[in-house]
Amino acid sequence: MTALVGVIMGSKSDWSTLSHTADMLEQLGIPYEVKVVSAHRTPDLLFQYAEEAADRGIEVIIAGAGGAAHLPGMCAAKTHLPVLGVPVQSSMLSGVDSLLSIVQMPAGVPVATLAIGKAGAVNAALLSASILGGKHPQFGKALQDFRSQQTDNVLNNPDPRQA
Amino acid sequence: MTALVGVIMGSKSDWSTLSHTADMLEQLGIPYEVKVVSAHRTPDLLFQYAEEAADRGIEVIIAGAGGAAHLPGMCAAKTHLPVLGVPVQSSMLSGVDSLLSIVQMPAGVPVATLAIGKAGAVNAALLSASILGGKHPQFGKALQDFRSQQTDNVLNNPDPRQA
Amino acid sequence: MTALVGVIMGSKSDWSTLSHTADMLEQLGIPYEVKVVSAHRTPDLLFQYAEEAADRGIEVIIAGAGGAAHLPGMCAAKTHLPVLGVPVQSSMLSGVDSLLSIVQMPAGVPVATLAIGKAGAVNAALLSASILGGKHPQFGKALQDFRSQQTDNVLNNPDPRQA
Amino acid sequence: MTALVGVIMGSKSDWSTLSHTADMLEQLGIPYEVKVVSAHRTPDLLFQYAEEAADRGIEVIIAGAGGAAHLPGMCAAKTHLPVLGVPVQSSMLSGVDSLLSIVQMPAGVPVATLAIGKAGAVNAALLSASILGGKHPQFGKALQDFRSQQTDNVLNNPDPRQA
Amino acid sequence: MTALVGVIMGSKSDWSTLSHTADMLEQLGIPYEVKVVSAHRTPDLLFQYAEEAADRGIEVIIAGAGGAAHLPGMCAAKTHLPVLGVPVQSSMLSGVDSLLSIVQMPAGVPVATLAIGKAGAVNAALLSASILGGKHPQFGKALQDFRSQQTDNVLNNPDPRQA
Amino acid sequence: MTALVGVIMGSKSDWSTLSHTADMLEQLGIPYEVKVVSAHRTPDLLFQYAEEAADRGIEVIIAGAGGAAHLPGMCAAKTHLPVLGVPVQSSMLSGVDSLLSIVQMPAGVPVATLAIGKAGAVNAALLSASILGGKHPQFGKALQDFRSQQTDNVLNNPDPRQA
Amino acid sequence: MTALVGVIMGSKSDWSTLSHTADMLEQLGIPYEVKVVSAHRTPDLLFQYAEEAADRGIEVIIAGAGGAAHLPGMCAAKTHLPVLGVPVQSSMLSGVDSLLSIVQMPAGVPVATLAIGKAGAVNAALLSASILGGKHPQFGKALQDFRSQQTDNVLNNPDPRQA
Amino acid sequence: MTALVGVIMGSKSDWSTLSHTADMLEQLGIPYEVKVVSAHRTPDLLFQYAEEAADRGIEVIIAGAGGAAHLPGMCAAKTHLPVLGVPVQSSMLSGVDSLLSIVQMPAGVPVATLAIGKAGAVNAALLSASILGGKHPQFGKALQDFRSQQTDNVLNNPDPRQA
Repeated sequence: MTALVGVIMGSKSDWSTLSHTADMLEQLGIPYEVKVVSAHRTPDLLFQYAEEAADRGIEVIIAGAGGAAHLPGMCAAKTHLPVLGVPVQSSMLSGVDSLLSIVQMPAGVPVATLAIGKAGAVNAALLSASILGGKHPQFGKALQDFRSQQTDNVLNNPDPRQA
Repeated sequence: MTALVGVIMGSKSDWSTLSHTADMLEQLGIPYEVKVVSAHRTPDLLFQYAEEAADRGIEVIIAGAGGAAHLPGMCAAKTHLPVLGVPVQSSMLSGVDSLLSIVQMPAGVPVATLAIGKAGAVNAALLSASILGGKHPQFGKALQDFRSQQTDNVLNNPDPRQA
Repeated sequence: MTALVGVIMGSKSDWSTLSHTADMLEQLGIPYEVKVVSAHRTPDLLFQYAEEAADRGIEVIIAGAGGAAHLPGMCAAKTHLPVLGVPVQSSMLSGVDSLLSIVQMPAGVPVATLAIGKAGAVNAALLSASILGGKHPQFGKALQDFRSQQTDNVLNNPDPRQA
Repeated sequence: MTALVGVIMGSKSDWSTLSHTADMLEQLGIPYEVKVVSAHRTPDLLFQYAEEAADRGIEVIIAGAGGAAHLPGMCAAKTHLPVLGVPVQSSMLSGVDSLLSIVQMPAGVPVATLAIGKAGAVNAALLSASILGGKHPQFGKALQDFRSQQTDNVLNNPDPRQA
Repeated sequence: MTALVGVIMGSKSDWSTLSHTADMLEQLGIPYEVKVVSAHRTPDLLFQYAEEAADRGIEVIIAGAGGAAHLPGMCAAKTHLPVLGVPVQSSMLSGVDSLLSIVQMPAGVPVATLAIGKAGAVNAALLSASILGGKHPQFGKALQDFRSQQTDNVLNNPDPRQA
Repeated sequence: MTALVGVIMGSKSDWSTLSHTADMLEQLGIPYEVKVVSAHRTPDLLFQYAEEAADRGIEVIIAGAGGAAHLPGMCAAKTHLPVLGVPVQSSMLSGVDSLLSIVQMPAGVPVATLAIGKAGAVNAALLSASILGGKHPQFGKALQDFRSQQTDNVLNNPDPRQA
Repeated sequence: MTALVGVIMGSKSDWSTLSHTADMLEQLGIPYEVKVVSAHRTPDLLFQYAEEAADRGIEVIIAGAGGAAHLPGMCAAKTHLPVLGVPVQSSMLSGVDSLLSIVQMPAGVPVATLAIGKAGAVNAALLSASILGGKHPQFGKALQDFRSQQTDNVLNNPDPRQA
Repeated sequence: MTALVGVIMGSKSDWSTLSHTADMLEQLGIPYEVKVVSAHRTPDLLFQYAEEAADRGIEVIIAGAGGAAHLPGMCAAKTHLPVLGVPVQSSMLSGVDSLLSIVQMPAGVPVATLAIGKAGAVNAALLSASILGGKHPQFGKALQDFRSQQTDNVLNNPDPRQA
């Protein structure tokens, strides 16, 4: 099946964060693609990717970046697909710069922003399942199964003193 | 037509922010409902609202709140629909508390977070159009028309010295 | 003796912080229980726990959580017992997000917030002794003994150059 | 009836915040006293106040202060009563300095910290009702009545578009 | 004389800040142009502007933007000219978001960042004079005259008590 | 009597803050001088001022500045006198930039930093009295009188409800 | 010779920071004493220490503390001697809480605040030399010698590529 | 060829950051010099360096410093050359203090500020190439070659899963 979710990131070093997105998409059975697309080093590639994504069958774009993170917002400026932004933890400011650079978009062009780092990377996959679920019920179902299971995991292991 | 987007907020005072969401939803022709639902003062109502939303035909929930803003996250904990969080500017900390309380969700339950205040409120409506567009092409079309118009507005008024 | 203090936390990983609460409660002789209750993964369990706590004999609830920490505030929304919130240090933002998500509660539903991390975990136990002391003098006495001893420890070891 | 709650503040200018504590204590029918006690300008008075409070019948101390806010913590150092700290919004840093100076107490001496400003001032009164309720059921009852009423207020006025 | 400095900004509302850049460029006699170019609403125009600037004779680009400010960085990604970034004070976060979104560029594509708001806007003009001065001595001379005059202004008015 | 305290500031606009220093020095009877000395616009004057201060009889220098506040630290680099730094509230960042630019001096050259704004300006005068008191007992005496009076003011007006 | 500088700290764990103060005082030949005095665990000892310091011959007090650091400010409230505050790096918030708790003193009671951590600890010693130098010229001389030497160290080793 | 870029830093410990500037200048073939010049320990050397730089043939100054980083701004106060500031990551506050001390210059004296740490150090070299390129086309050419190569590196290695 062709990819429904496009996962892009600003550099290879972001893969240690975005790999959690890929793992969760696998687990949910959502077809996806991954690619390094740098807003600053390959701006033309970014524009091409964002412009062509919908026509290639992509329905949700997940973009992860750190520091002055322009990838999610510039991607959103060039597509009408939902763009999910994952702030990657920066080496200097713990990802506060990444978060503000992604979430504080001006009125007119939204980015759906997730938490900094691994939690946000996992949640971007879950959010894409929720979004895709409107049109593709099987992904909504996969999401519900995952959520039920994670609830059961807590309910069945209530004692924090046991590993 | 029955509401597709549910707009909820923690208190009436949040309406000065969330009314921008409602205005944009109107402009895009997306049927919606608005309601005050307080996570802290009416927790049972919140759970009921989130649990029943999908069955009532709601496809996207937009939740705005300020301070220790628990409304979007707790709503997301009780539904599989996409939940969009709008951090309302708080009187003391400019909305930094609202933003962090909404965006820093743990892995497992995502909230799609927008910018603090009016920009985020407008963008929550635009993001809902983008999400709904997958299943309801007319809202994707409305979004594209809005985006084209806002681009033209800039292109046709390039001189900042003219009002 | 039945538990007077209920110690809950959002995930097992919070135990490395909340175990300091348990240790101090032991030291003070206050009967307590510990349980993982996740606001986001097990919201119904949280509501049930908070609703039933008073009837089960619990007099103080200590809730620890990190990131967008909704556990203490949502617990407080469902009980009239004093809820003490312990912000767990988050991996990304040092617990600033945890702190603001817990302390910045709106007027109407308070959470008694302690310091981030271990210091707050220890102090939650001491504060519960202080609160319980009003009705159960033996815990007030235990608190006074602990405080006297910690004062003596400083007075008897005034030289920082000696280990 | 003699005062059960002592409300102290660092300067008269803090009254615009702490008056909300007094108003809520009135509403709940809890006997209280108010006094200006400055940690920096009247340190001996502070120590005397904290030392004698329990013997005078005070069961909870609410202390509000701003900037390098030492009043709640130093009060807690001199009493075994529960001390509730209200960070007053500072003119320069929005109360972040007040909040951190109050909440980040070291292990050994807790301060139950509330939100910055008016919300925290109101909640300090509600928290004191919750604490006192263990020994004085009438204040627990008053708290429950207040909470029920505030819930009903939201439930009966769900439309944010109506004043 | 054709424009040597291109002053662009994300929206007309930024003109209240960037007009200070224009005023100082006038004062220094540096030919310039001003234009609204929005990274998010007119991304193609931005790329075209940045790509063609050098060929049109522009030697320095000054870009001002607020919030998730992507204009300076994306402009820098598409030109080899020096790009000077002016963080515009944002309504919510005082320009901290603007500053971090502009200054925290990854290795490979620099933006010369100035102070938030009016001071940065004035200084962007002065810095452009300093940069142009290498090739166009008359602007270096104009800068030196301005700096001498501002020094004399302080030296001749040393008494802060006199207006 | 010749000035013992030199009060300098980066621009005339800082006088609204530093005038509180002057007022308190008057009240304490400490001879002082005031002057605008800009680190950035009149660096040579700053060096001359700092180098000559001790020989002119100045015993303490109070330096107030805002934003990237270099005046106190550079003054300290050119004198062995105690330099007291007053962070002036900046228009953009509330004085956080001023505070960090003054207080975070590297090992080797200290600046005695006071609070941001008016409180720091008043306290710089009081601290200078404390420092001068070692050699000039009359200023130590004046400080003690002021402190006694401010304590009495609180003790005599304990009711916050009275103006 | 009897101690002229009293170095106090909130706990033994602060010694790793304050030992740098002691080392520099040694190097400058200034007689000093060191002691653990906890504002929260030994408040009475703190008051006694501050009250008696001047009579015992102490001329400058250096107080180091972390977190909600009340030691310097409360010491200053009980003495007219200059109090120098050293913010100790806290484990959770990097010392921002320590810094704000020390520097943001209200008008009326100053604390001369130094940088967070080791740099501040070293500089507290140097500042005390500068203050003592007014009355004891030998310490002013020692300070000048130290400063000359540190300048020469830089001048004689200008190449950063050589260890 | 004589140095065109002067790279200065506040202490030898900054070399681990500024060495990245030197490496990139080498790679671009730009002649440069490096030197330790401390604003606080060698203020006279700093003034001499800044005053003489232009006459010695220096066309751009790159200054790196941490904490209360006064080197770039004071250098800019004494020269009309472009001064590029690199905030060095401080041990306590992650370089936020360094960044604000460098970027928040008042109107009248600009510093072109780069990102905190290594990214900023690399970019200072690239920005100097961009500035020098106006007068020395060979450095503009070297910059373009470097930028093309870094773009190709991304385009040729698009798969983040491959090292």
